[in-house]
Amino acid sequence: MPTEALKYAQLHRDRFLLELKELLEIPSISALPEHKPDMQRTAQWLVDHFTALGLKHAKINPTPGHPIVTADWLEAGPDKPTVLIYGHYDVQPVDPIELWHSDPFRAEVRGDYLFGRGTSDDKGQMFIHAKVLETYLKTSGKLPVNVKLIIEGEEEVGGPNLDAFIIANKDYLKADVAVISDTSMIKPGQPSIVYGLRGLCYIQVEVTGPNRDLHSGQYGGAVYNPIQALSEMLASLKDSNGHVTVPGFYDKVIALDEAERARIAAIPYTEEGFLQETGVPGVWGEAGYTVRERVTARPTLEINGIWGGFQGEGPKTVLPAKAGAKISCRLVANQDHYEIADILQKHLKQIAPPEVTVETKRLHGGHGALIDVTSKYMQAAARVLEETFGNPPVYEREGGSIPVVATFQTELGIDSVMLGYGLPDDNLHSPDERFYLPNFYGGIDATIKFLSEIAK
Amino acid sequence: MPTEALKYAQLHRDRFLLELKELLEIPSISALPEHKPDMQRTAQWLVDHFTALGLKHAKINPTPGHPIVTADWLEAGPDKPTVLIYGHYDVQPVDPIELWHSDPFRAEVRGDYLFGRGTSDDKGQMFIHAKVLETYLKTSGKLPVNVKLIIEGEEEVGGPNLDAFIIANKDYLKADVAVISDTSMIKPGQPSIVYGLRGLCYIQVEVTGPNRDLHSGQYGGAVYNPIQALSEMLASLKDSNGHVTVPGFYDKVIALDEAERARIAAIPYTEEGFLQETGVPGVWGEAGYTVRERVTARPTLEINGIWGGFQGEGPKTVLPAKAGAKISCRLVANQDHYEIADILQKHLKQIAPPEVTVETKRLHGGHGALIDVTSKYMQAAARVLEETFGNPPVYEREGGSIPVVATFQTELGIDSVMLGYGLPDDNLHSPDERFYLPNFYGGIDATIKFLSEIAK
Repeated sequence: MPTEALKYAQLHRDRFLLELKELLEIPSISALPEHKPDMQRTAQWLVDHFTALGLKHAKINPTPGHPIVTADWLEAGPDKPTVLIYGHYDVQPVDPIELWHSDPFRAEVRGDYLFGRGTSDDKGQMFIHAKVLETYLKTSGKLPVNVKLIIEGEEEVGGPNLDAFIIANKDYLKADVAVISDTSMIKPGQPSIVYGLRGLCYIQVEVTGPNRDLHSGQYGGAVYNPIQALSEMLASLKDSNGHVTVPGFYDKVIALDEAERARIAAIPYTEEGFLQETGVPGVWGEAGYTVRERVTARPTLEINGIWGGFQGEGPKTVLPAKAGAKISCRLVANQDHYEIADILQKHLKQIAPPEVTVETKRLHGGHGALIDVTSKYMQAAARVLEETFGNPPVYEREGGSIPVVATFQTELGIDSVMLGYGLPDDNLHSPDERFYLPNFYGGIDATIKFLSEIAK
Repeated sequence: MPTEALKYAQLHRDRFLLELKELLEIPSISALPEHKPDMQRTAQWLVDHFTALGLKHAKINPTPGHPIVTADWLEAGPDKPTVLIYGHYDVQPVDPIELWHSDPFRAEVRGDYLFGRGTSDDKGQMFIHAKVLETYLKTSGKLPVNVKLIIEGEEEVGGPNLDAFIIANKDYLKADVAVISDTSMIKPGQPSIVYGLRGLCYIQVEVTGPNRDLHSGQYGGAVYNPIQALSEMLASLKDSNGHVTVPGFYDKVIALDEAERARIAAIPYTEEGFLQETGVPGVWGEAGYTVRERVTARPTLEINGIWGGFQGEGPKTVLPAKAGAKISCRLVANQDHYEIADILQKHLKQIAPPEVTVETKRLHGGHGALIDVTSKYMQAAARVLEETFGNPPVYEREGGSIPVVATFQTELGIDSVMLGYGLPDDNLHSPDERFYLPNFYGGIDATIKFLSEIAK
């Protein structure tokens, strides 16, 4: 039992929170070009912080996009495993800003939660690891295992630079296992271990009709309105059973077997809870699958944004020149995100009426992943989570995407252990993002134990 | 022949243009609340101008919305007809502003055109009448007919205040005929007289799914995306023949008879010209009707705007809480715009999937109109247009809406003569709105002759 480290964590809780708040104050929104200097500031903050707590070689690695921060501590000896800790310091945009109850970049404690952009996704969870390493280094001057850190700044925009960096630095990043805290527990006191992640394919489509906005009275009735065309195209992407109609979309999907369906059914997750959490009048989705299967184990297609014509107050009788939409698919393990982006874009062009022109582009993508749940690292994770949170973890697939898990598999040949300390209602990507503070502190304890456990 | 007035018009052309530019500089956008003071300024400008040129009782009439300007000159004697001149001083918004080649509110002459918001619709055309009255009053001190002016500020937003004002001031507005310049000629040198106008019904629809924007990875697949729902609803509003599917939509439409179809077919108007003008890859529309019939004599349904979710740069994996659209219908003479707004709103709620909620509201509306082409006023208009522009006018229906024509019919019992001096490619409601200057000067000449002609 790493008693000293755990005691140190207990003693320094308040300072840990203050430091996290400082990190959260830098608006590191990777999607918005105007925040580029904030990305650099955040990376520098991390380098300084890692160096101060005793890690070696902390540095900023420039990329064509936002920088990647690395650091290491490799003095545990060759007989100890090497752990590659991954996290991301970038955050989502904050719009609609008017729905936040506090400044997204002045993190505020209300009740048991810390509210602010990045609290849960992923600065708060990533910071757990920094503090875990500090507890060891500041009490015994060493870590029980060898550690490498890779903290990126383009997770929320799926930048291609992380993969390129990993491929270019395979030797430096060589490890026995990766550890990632960017997922959620089922509920307070009920940890989970994610063994499946969905991939992502994100595209944009723009439909052009006339060469300029037209007067709807003078031209209405003889011009294929681009909003009409786009609506028809989008409407046709799903059938009445909620199946995606893009030809080839399901070709590489591995069907869920009975064992896995049973495992998913065992997860405490109710339709009522889902309704309450989302406020929707009714659940919806692909026929033949449970809600939990739909949001974690089946591929989806969502329209993330749409625009066209007059959006201001009042009436404007315009027949617009253009309309556009953002569309993304969540993919399951065996689907290739490049291939799906390709067939989706081709399909959109194919179904467009001849009276309009259509342009598409790929914005983002990442592969899904499935992880072996029987490895010694996964078993160690299960033990420490049960010990810390009082219940054995459930094994689950997660609906979101962490493309780096697939990259670690293919490029470094290692699996990832996802020690997730978020909660399902952390409002990720939404107003009032928050982090459940007992999970912040519990996550530090569990991860201290995890490092000690895998060193045995 | 009103030789002196015509000579005066010739002599003062440059000043007329400068004065018009001054009027065009005030950004009287009725749809945008921040321009309310500009509406008042424009009304005051008109009152001052009308007074200076010799009209009587020029005044601002407040309404619950934007003011209405009236003036008169009634000294022609009881045996002379009284003409009610209608125009509007409000203009459309200017977005997308980046597509303008000059400041919309610093009118600029390029070639034969005056570019700027309101040049053609309707400040420029309305100003023709002011200058016509000036030519008489400044040369002979009197007009050949009695004149009343009513210039409103809510034409582009279909405010209900004009109808209320007309009804409340029936005695003051009593006249033999109305004259309106807010329509277009077929092309330079080819005048037209509009005898039919489409009505308008404008609504807004908002679809709500979840109670907040959700993470598309955590919830995607089990929530009816409001953009998806809205797209499906909008797509279903037309069938594959371009017919509107809203039950009851066509119930009161008077079918086009062969005589009228022949008259419409006689108008010089080609599909090639339409393609060139609009830049669309192909024409489209209701099966069984020509392009000209579709844009002038048949009711339509257009989506004027759509919005929802993330519209910024890059990817954002959001499953949005809301999506909305603006929808308007052009109606033909016998359709009731209140009734159509009602059935359209009911239909949208009916076709919405049960997993979302739908709110709708009516934003705007006006009835269509048909005018007797054989009246002495219409015949006088035909003579002066031919004399001024060199060709006899064609009689046509116009696709746009001038609801006041129906109000003048029902409330004052008078028809309107539409002396239209615009051109089809004036870019109404679009960037680079323009007015063909030979029509500005020709319009003044023709209208001088018209007043003299109807005084006979």
